[in-house]
Amino acid sequence: MPEYRKNSITGDWVIIAADRAGRPETFCQRSENKKVRSADLDKTAECPFCYGNEDQTPPEIVAWRDGSPPNTPGWKVRVVPNKYPAASLKGPPEPWTAKGVFQEMAGYGIHEVLIETPQHNRHPGELSLHQTELIIKSYFHRFVDLARDGSLMSVQIFRNHGREAGASIEHPHSQLVALPCATPVLLKEMREAQRFYLEKGRCPYCLLLEEELSSGARIIIEDESFVAFVPYAARMPFELWIVPRRHQSSFSEINEAEQKVMALFVMKVLHVIKATLDDPPYNYYLHSAPLRALSLPYYHWHLEIFPRVTVPGGFEMGTGVYINVTVPEEAAQFLRERKECFEKHAENSNVFYSGVTQSPAGGEFS
Amino acid sequence: MPEYRKNSITGDWVIIAADRAGRPETFCQRSENKKVRSADLDKTAECPFCYGNEDQTPPEIVAWRDGSPPNTPGWKVRVVPNKYPAASLKGPPEPWTAKGVFQEMAGYGIHEVLIETPQHNRHPGELSLHQTELIIKSYFHRFVDLARDGSLMSVQIFRNHGREAGASIEHPHSQLVALPCATPVLLKEMREAQRFYLEKGRCPYCLLLEEELSSGARIIIEDESFVAFVPYAARMPFELWIVPRRHQSSFSEINEAEQKVMALFVMKVLHVIKATLDDPPYNYYLHSAPLRALSLPYYHWHLEIFPRVTVPGGFEMGTGVYINVTVPEEAAQFLRERKECFEKHAENSNVFYSGVTQSPAGGEFS
Repeated sequence: MPEYRKNSITGDWVIIAADRAGRPETFCQRSENKKVRSADLDKTAECPFCYGNEDQTPPEIVAWRDGSPPNTPGWKVRVVPNKYPAASLKGPPEPWTAKGVFQEMAGYGIHEVLIETPQHNRHPGELSLHQTELIIKSYFHRFVDLARDGSLMSVQIFRNHGREAGASIEHPHSQLVALPCATPVLLKEMREAQRFYLEKGRCPYCLLLEEELSSGARIIIEDESFVAFVPYAARMPFELWIVPRRHQSSFSEINEAEQKVMALFVMKVLHVIKATLDDPPYNYYLHSAPLRALSLPYYHWHLEIFPRVTVPGGFEMGTGVYINVTVPEEAAQFLRERKECFEKHAENSNVFYSGVTQSPAGGEFS
Repeated sequence: MPEYRKNSITGDWVIIAADRAGRPETFCQRSENKKVRSADLDKTAECPFCYGNEDQTPPEIVAWRDGSPPNTPGWKVRVVPNKYPAASLKGPPEPWTAKGVFQEMAGYGIHEVLIETPQHNRHPGELSLHQTELIIKSYFHRFVDLARDGSLMSVQIFRNHGREAGASIEHPHSQLVALPCATPVLLKEMREAQRFYLEKGRCPYCLLLEEELSSGARIIIEDESFVAFVPYAARMPFELWIVPRRHQSSFSEINEAEQKVMALFVMKVLHVIKATLDDPPYNYYLHSAPLRALSLPYYHWHLEIFPRVTVPGGFEMGTGVYINVTVPEEAAQFLRERKECFEKHAENSNVFYSGVTQSPAGGEFS
């Protein structure tokens, strides 16, 4: 029988209707016509994110290199302005203006692309740990750097993997969109979290983490600094959150050791998803308090990973309620039982990716 | 340059970033691998919604027939319980219960499937007008009938067309989900509309309609009872709303003449979308005040049509903000210039669909 579950932070709710599709196993084999990735590992000719095509992007903002000059090959992670930005105007912003009921604002903000690896067709769950650490470090660098611009309020860091998750370029990349205001989702999370805090004196995310750890039913991996779990009111089969144990409202409060553990967790989770669910399309996105809003007692940054294994339809669009066809506890157990596949990957990664892991770990942002 | 626009009802906003993909014309030709519909018009063998397979669904709730007995062929529109319901428990509902932060409710409600035509592969924009009228009449019948159950609060009527819009069965059908509570989207629309009404003394939808008609830039079709337009803050290229001119908060307040005009508008709009955008996947869903809440001065029922021509990614998921790559005024002009294709369809429909249009128009719900 279906069951409704509430997101304890936002109050939004989902329908868990496991009858509709069956067991977690049904997601292991994706149909052939859904596979759209090219077979080439290094497809340099047309791809603007491959080595040698650095002139096909706007000049880089920052890159992680071993001494090679800007906008040439030799980088490991490269950040460039998005050629087709969703936000592009320098602030300070003019406020919303109204013509009758129609309200608008010019497109203030910044839109960047973070190219995660020189390798064209490398799944992020199969990168070396060192490379994943560079990616997280780059997120942190950009977040802190964008916070210096007082006309920006919030930064969205997100990743689309696969065409069905909105990726238009196959080469692994993340995006950063910095905006002069909070977004509706951030506004709602912060408003409801603040209300909870004022009424009950606790960060609702810290409390959620305690209860998730105490239950254990939805935990995938945990260590002393992070927990990865399937949320109680998961909207999608295998939805996963990675939450820091230490209370931190802003992603910019993460320390260097935590960045490394976060990289390990992201890599493990993406690897397990790829290996067990036949490389599904997915999104992830980082929720953080607004820029420069540090040490808020009620908010708690976290990463949400959202495999696109079912397609939301008119019901979800029209109601804001997701129908999840897999019981979250079963999805968690399924992933937990298969997480050892990651350990095998870790053992083999030096062989597969020697080019990357053997390169010097030093270097500075250019 | 990108621009931000606010939905005047909910306050949610979108990013109009037309640089990212270009002109409306770019959506006319869909890639071959996205075409997943079968070529057969009448695919009866395996389809549970085709003539002769009535025993593959639960027994019908209601059907529009010319005298044939229930659960046999001969129907024109057939309503059955969903075999894999998202809601199934008879009320009155037990309220939400909490175990710590985890809140849940049993799956109270009703989930029905409305089979729109006996023809397996008939695009809804190419049905006869008479058939489309039967569909709208059936929506109305079910809405009014479900309102009699005092344990139900809201009904979602929606349609998914194409796999990429969440349809798992190709045969044209709509769905109805009746729930014991309001959904987050309805709650937000009603709350904000009420606030607007209390502050300004006007239904915000009536005001929006006035301003849309006065501008004209986004109108597709209009007559004395309905207006179809691309909303100012459209989330998706070619998003369309069909709104009744007469102030009605509940879909159950629509009269018979309005049902016929609504059918004509739905048919025209779906036909234009199919013909000009190469049969894209789409959803539509009806937003109405809760059951039995009639004549509210601040709310206004309407139908939202949402072609899935781009794929929302991590940005949309993480922020609640859509990036629309087509300027709404250009999308509207594009559709307006092509709406004469519908007239051609109307002329030809007696030839194409003589089987349906020549059948007697009488009959009663069984």
